Amino acid sequence: MDSILKTADFSHYFDWAATTPPDSQILEEALKLTLENYGNPSSLHKLGTTAGKLLTQARERCAKALGVAPDTIIFTSGGTESDHFPILSLLQKPKNRNSDNNGTIVISAIEHPAIREQAKMMENCGYRVTLVPPEKNGIVSAEKFVSKTDDNTHLVCLMAVNNETGAIQPVYEVAELLQKKYTNHKKPKFHVDAVQAVGKIPLRLNHKGIDSAAISAHKIRGPRGIGILYLAKRIEPFVRGGEQENGLRPGTENVFGALAMAMCLEKYIISERTPESLQKLEKQNNVSSGFISDLLQIKGCKIIPESRNKDDSEHFSPWIVQAAFENIPGKVMVRALAEKGFSISTGSACSAKKLSRPVLEAMQVSKEDATNAVRFSFGPNTSEQAVSTLLTAIREVTSDFV
Amino acid sequence: MDSILKTADFSHYFDWAATTPPDSQILEEALKLTLENYGNPSSLHKLGTTAGKLLTQARERCAKALGVAPDTIIFTSGGTESDHFPILSLLQKPKNRNSDNNGTIVISAIEHPAIREQAKMMENCGYRVTLVPPEKNGIVSAEKFVSKTDDNTHLVCLMAVNNETGAIQPVYEVAELLQKKYTNHKKPKFHVDAVQAVGKIPLRLNHKGIDSAAISAHKIRGPRGIGILYLAKRIEPFVRGGEQENGLRPGTENVFGALAMAMCLEKYIISERTPESLQKLEKQNNVSSGFISDLLQIKGCKIIPESRNKDDSEHFSPWIVQAAFENIPGKVMVRALAEKGFSISTGSACSAKKLSRPVLEAMQVSKEDATNAVRFSFGPNTSEQAVSTLLTAIREVTSDFV
Repeated sequence: MDSILKTADFSHYFDWAATTPPDSQILEEALKLTLENYGNPSSLHKLGTTAGKLLTQARERCAKALGVAPDTIIFTSGGTESDHFPILSLLQKPKNRNSDNNGTIVISAIEHPAIREQAKMMENCGYRVTLVPPEKNGIVSAEKFVSKTDDNTHLVCLMAVNNETGAIQPVYEVAELLQKKYTNHKKPKFHVDAVQAVGKIPLRLNHKGIDSAAISAHKIRGPRGIGILYLAKRIEPFVRGGEQENGLRPGTENVFGALAMAMCLEKYIISERTPESLQKLEKQNNVSSGFISDLLQIKGCKIIPESRNKDDSEHFSPWIVQAAFENIPGKVMVRALAEKGFSISTGSACSAKKLSRPVLEAMQVSKEDATNAVRFSFGPNTSEQAVSTLLTAIREVTSDFV
Repeated sequence: MDSILKTADFSHYFDWAATTPPDSQILEEALKLTLENYGNPSSLHKLGTTAGKLLTQARERCAKALGVAPDTIIFTSGGTESDHFPILSLLQKPKNRNSDNNGTIVISAIEHPAIREQAKMMENCGYRVTLVPPEKNGIVSAEKFVSKTDDNTHLVCLMAVNNETGAIQPVYEVAELLQKKYTNHKKPKFHVDAVQAVGKIPLRLNHKGIDSAAISAHKIRGPRGIGILYLAKRIEPFVRGGEQENGLRPGTENVFGALAMAMCLEKYIISERTPESLQKLEKQNNVSSGFISDLLQIKGCKIIPESRNKDDSEHFSPWIVQAAFENIPGKVMVRALAEKGFSISTGSACSAKKLSRPVLEAMQVSKEDATNAVRFSFGPNTSEQAVSTLLTAIREVTSDFV
């Protein structure tokens, strides 16, 4: 098998939101530990209990990095499964199974397909789904969002950072408004898809009113196939099997993945508790701000949303910049840059083969701009020099299309 | 972190049915390929398409090893998820959602919890579940099993090899009887949990009438967190998200796991198409037959089921032997052997922390025997010498209890 990247050179990789180059040191260390301690953590013999201890340590290390209690950390197969858990959990309640309206699920219209498509499937099980569109700037209004909930709402989902635009969503505000609105009766569960937030911007998972959250390892240089479901308080699973993960997530535990996840969180977390990580964020804010300025110098280029200010680090993750180039369809730009060795994408990799762009549609982006939109996404290893090389390549492509 | 096994010495490991020592050469090779080719297989740039090619190759290699077509191979997070897929798929049909009887699911009473517990949850969604007990020998009667189905049966599940007793179930016979019974109207889907069969005994997945099957990598020396769902013909998923795996299984593809799975299948498959693999099986038949003979020499020891003949390779997987020792509770035997450095287990690791033994109960094993039951399971690296050492240790433990 040919390798297209013999060395750890990520200077042409601008698709970190799709997946990140794994941290080879971490993966190799985690693999070594797993090869030596291969027992099933649920087994009662010594090899089992040793593996169990490794898993406990991984859980504790993840919890510490995230600033939460170890028993809130459930290891899953990834962000998608973590997103599914609170939705599917609704099905474990036998009551009302014959009703045509078992309850409503309120989600933003810009959720990842793992939430959006799964919520839609729940309509087949008697649930109603309310989609709340974002404002034109790609940010959901917390007030409007919470106003769509009522006493029959069982679950609300709002992602922390949108995977296509980088728009930071008001998850704390939603948590607080929900707490306020449902003082006397049962508050709907609030799930946060934190896949594009953890390791990118500070996020207090244990903020009051956040009931669950999804985290993926491969977005922070970990392996595929491992994620975290943060559960502030136990909810009953619908998906059943063995008694692993405190009876919450069946399937033999992926100790390799859990260890790698812990090491990646420790190394790559961006948190208010670690000043060094905030420095990394500050540096990236400067990089993306400069990148946006330079893009806007290119004729026919606009940032999506257009209102995104180059210094708007309060509302946009600096790790994602979406832009459209007049008369250049996004797919053409992706290919043209690919020919020059660069990796970028149109929207989400999870729906790269689909033509529709529901996130941009929900933002009322014009059809033309949506067609021309591409996503640039950055990682901790992206240098200013690399961004400058990318800009040169973009300028070359756009000048070919004048 | 201390390693309890510095070298690849599995001579005291007799819990291969719980999990297997990973094949370090395979895992390291798969990891290396993944570190070099880290793109998201769904991305359209070169790193993405290269990763996509690796995934395609892994799929083709798995298919070839299993003797099926590549498009029948869906990569999942493991055996449990693969078992869930056909059950949850029932929920994607919007019709009848308000009925109190959406259909029945017929399963054997000795299914793994991934099937048994999940089927039970479906009762909350208006499905009825019929449990078919095995005969006293731990084998389900194909006739009785199929007789429990009717026109309202949507799904039937029968495992290929029971994980506690090693009893081989008549899956081909069930497939044929179902085909025969439902010539004029819609046949229920037939799912086979093949987790303890693939890599252990020959299994023709593409036998007519088998609609789906579950395979787990970590039972055949692969990593945790990767499995295969074999789907003879596409069925619509209930769990949704990205468009990965031909729209059947969402979540960024685990290329590392898929590659390791392919390599493990190629190396460890037991198939009628590879005479060498049948030799391995023959060798293990001799090992387990000798083991059973020697166990029966020990006072108070019985094999479960008692009717299991030492040479009954037609009806029992030689990789699993369940036995009970009079007056020695299974947990005590596990600990006593653990103190001597051996790894065995009571029943399934997935329910090691539970006291109930539903498989043995369904077989009408006496409460005492069920309490005393332990499982010995073997792997391709288990030598006769190792088994002999184990027998010596068992004799020592039992003599302490006389």
